[in-house]
Amino acid sequence: MDSSKRTFLKRSIALLTASGLIARGARDVGAAEPPDIPPWMKSPGVGFNEYGMPSKHEGKVTRTLIRSQPGTTGSGAARTPLEALEGTITPSGLHFERSHSGVPDIDPDRHRVLIHGMVQRPLTFTIDALMRYPMVSRVHFIECSGNSQFLYQPAPPSLTVGQTHGLVSCSEWTGVPLRLLLDEAGVDRSAQWILAEGADAAALSRSIPMAKAMDDAMLALFQNGERLRPENGYPVRLFLPGWEGNMSVKWLRRLKVVPAPIMTKDETSRYTDLQGDGKSLMFTYPMDVKSVITRPSHGMTLKGAGLYQISGMAWSGSGTITKVEITTDGGKTWIVAPLTAPVLPRALTRFRLPWRWDSSATVLKSRATDDTGATQPEREKFIAEHGNNAIFHYSAISAWSVAANGEVKHVYA
Amino acid sequence: MDSSKRTFLKRSIALLTASGLIARGARDVGAAEPPDIPPWMKSPGVGFNEYGMPSKHEGKVTRTLIRSQPGTTGSGAARTPLEALEGTITPSGLHFERSHSGVPDIDPDRHRVLIHGMVQRPLTFTIDALMRYPMVSRVHFIECSGNSQFLYQPAPPSLTVGQTHGLVSCSEWTGVPLRLLLDEAGVDRSAQWILAEGADAAALSRSIPMAKAMDDAMLALFQNGERLRPENGYPVRLFLPGWEGNMSVKWLRRLKVVPAPIMTKDETSRYTDLQGDGKSLMFTYPMDVKSVITRPSHGMTLKGAGLYQISGMAWSGSGTITKVEITTDGGKTWIVAPLTAPVLPRALTRFRLPWRWDSSATVLKSRATDDTGATQPEREKFIAEHGNNAIFHYSAISAWSVAANGEVKHVYA
Repeated sequence: MDSSKRTFLKRSIALLTASGLIARGARDVGAAEPPDIPPWMKSPGVGFNEYGMPSKHEGKVTRTLIRSQPGTTGSGAARTPLEALEGTITPSGLHFERSHSGVPDIDPDRHRVLIHGMVQRPLTFTIDALMRYPMVSRVHFIECSGNSQFLYQPAPPSLTVGQTHGLVSCSEWTGVPLRLLLDEAGVDRSAQWILAEGADAAALSRSIPMAKAMDDAMLALFQNGERLRPENGYPVRLFLPGWEGNMSVKWLRRLKVVPAPIMTKDETSRYTDLQGDGKSLMFTYPMDVKSVITRPSHGMTLKGAGLYQISGMAWSGSGTITKVEITTDGGKTWIVAPLTAPVLPRALTRFRLPWRWDSSATVLKSRATDDTGATQPEREKFIAEHGNNAIFHYSAISAWSVAANGEVKHVYA
Repeated sequence: MDSSKRTFLKRSIALLTASGLIARGARDVGAAEPPDIPPWMKSPGVGFNEYGMPSKHEGKVTRTLIRSQPGTTGSGAARTPLEALEGTITPSGLHFERSHSGVPDIDPDRHRVLIHGMVQRPLTFTIDALMRYPMVSRVHFIECSGNSQFLYQPAPPSLTVGQTHGLVSCSEWTGVPLRLLLDEAGVDRSAQWILAEGADAAALSRSIPMAKAMDDAMLALFQNGERLRPENGYPVRLFLPGWEGNMSVKWLRRLKVVPAPIMTKDETSRYTDLQGDGKSLMFTYPMDVKSVITRPSHGMTLKGAGLYQISGMAWSGSGTITKVEITTDGGKTWIVAPLTAPVLPRALTRFRLPWRWDSSATVLKSRATDDTGATQPEREKFIAEHGNNAIFHYSAISAWSVAANGEVKHVYA
């Protein structure tokens, strides 16, 4: 936390403490002596295990499975429970999943990545070979372009923030810069596109602009320190920071250098954006600037007046979050919320603001701005521009109503 | 990656590519046409799951269990397999464990944290109450002060880097700054220490200087986005960035503000440092500047001459890593290795350097420097100063020999 933020926090807290607001309802007056010995101190606890899991008391914190194609196996999505998380890293066990034909069980020793097409030297890489190349690590979000699609509906869905916004997650990704491999293969300078194909039963395929491939694209091998999880592309995936998640092709098996987009099923029948006027946009790559308050959020109940912390996440596929504003009075006034350092490009950015709730009904919203100057629009303006036939790239401001009894609900406001 | 590092990497790679070194042995000449369809593309893969796990093909990547007290349950340590990891975040399932009487199964609804002693208002906090306070998130390593203790032995142990150095891990921790809670309780200004006690059967207890408590100490509730893992102190632990891990008391149940250190069993019979001259040091809090090469490392075998990437981690409990130097010729020459951004204080810092191996026998070492100017010493100098009766705070330079046949071994050199 840099010193200006620390000062801000100190001042906010000093103010709240001085008025006795932290105390009210938040904790009890304590005892002067040590507390009673709880049962779990009376005998030794359990021993070690080789690979740990969350506490059984957190068993309800899971991905939400929503299958979009009934009758199929593994075609659909599972969402990250954002309302239960804090910070910016998504634990890999709760990273969202989006698969088109399930998660393949790939033998890493038999898996190959081929670079071919308009290259001087077609190359085939084993995973062992890729492990010898120079790697980079970067913290980036990945967001399915279908995230928040339920919010195109005319009425606000009664869903948790994980269910509406949980097709975004953030990890530390480690892998080989794609440009190193393309340079080695010797790309024909007239080639402007690359076909990327996955080794799942859907053979998910997207056309990738050469400029992105030569910029910050990587072949990711590690996620949050360990090898990729199966549902995130084990043993290797393409990773295109900030772009719609579908293009970061999982279980990558080949990259074919081509002169023009291939117009695959995955970029024509899906992942195009039907607008209000009946036209469709395609190749809408960067995910837009966006934010959402995760605590408090839909389905929670505030327990009486006093101090709370508003906490949420902002992100932009075009760059770095520069500002998040919060309103706690339905949009009359907006307050700039401190961002948790380090604020990284194309990464989830945590914002937090202490908030004194006086137990009257109100509406909370957050609004993010990135370093291109783009600001998240109000929903009304967003729908006027894009219509509500679309599925992808929803990025408007979200609102939570807080009732006098403390109940928090999703509203369009 | 900042531009100077990118330039460095580009230059290194250009050099290596130009001499054909990436190609040799690292990958095969590819096919012009798409590869054969592997079996896992011929039918749909598995469906979704609520909480994901690593691939079964990574089943050997586990913590190494070393029980230090035979006949006890949960008294000992389990180490992070550093040789299998990349980047800086440790996945929580592989975070090291050090417990003195096992992992208690704590009901979070019944757990309480008491602040008492020399305060105006003793306070008791439920977990729900703590969740309402302002939180901060920070990426920090935690290192058991017994990490690398086997390296005090006269002969280099034949152990993997995870087994020798794996009592260090790094996470994004989120919690409530302790100073907020102490301010609310109203600490007597003459009090200089705090007793911290855990709710395990060992009631692990340490005396914490007030200055640290009022600086960057936190009551951590979240680890890498989700609630703390049981073995890391669920539902709440003290967290003292950069200090010996034992002081970041897990399963925290009380903080008693006191005038002087309590001299608990955990700071007298253990966690004191017996020196070569027979004296013991105590209250040696910050973990020293340290680094180790994780790839290649003991137990690995290089597969022929050509390009490899040297990758490792550096850290310092006193601040930020400013420099890591690598020697690939047994100490004759040292090269500054680029650090992966962001380089954060008291966090694991990843360094990497492309290396052309000519298949002759050699020795690899890394040497870290932090922003206090402290530099990791050679082992000989370290042992001359500290003796080899000690258990804790080993921080000397580690060396790996590479034989002509590619075998990598731990050596004292």
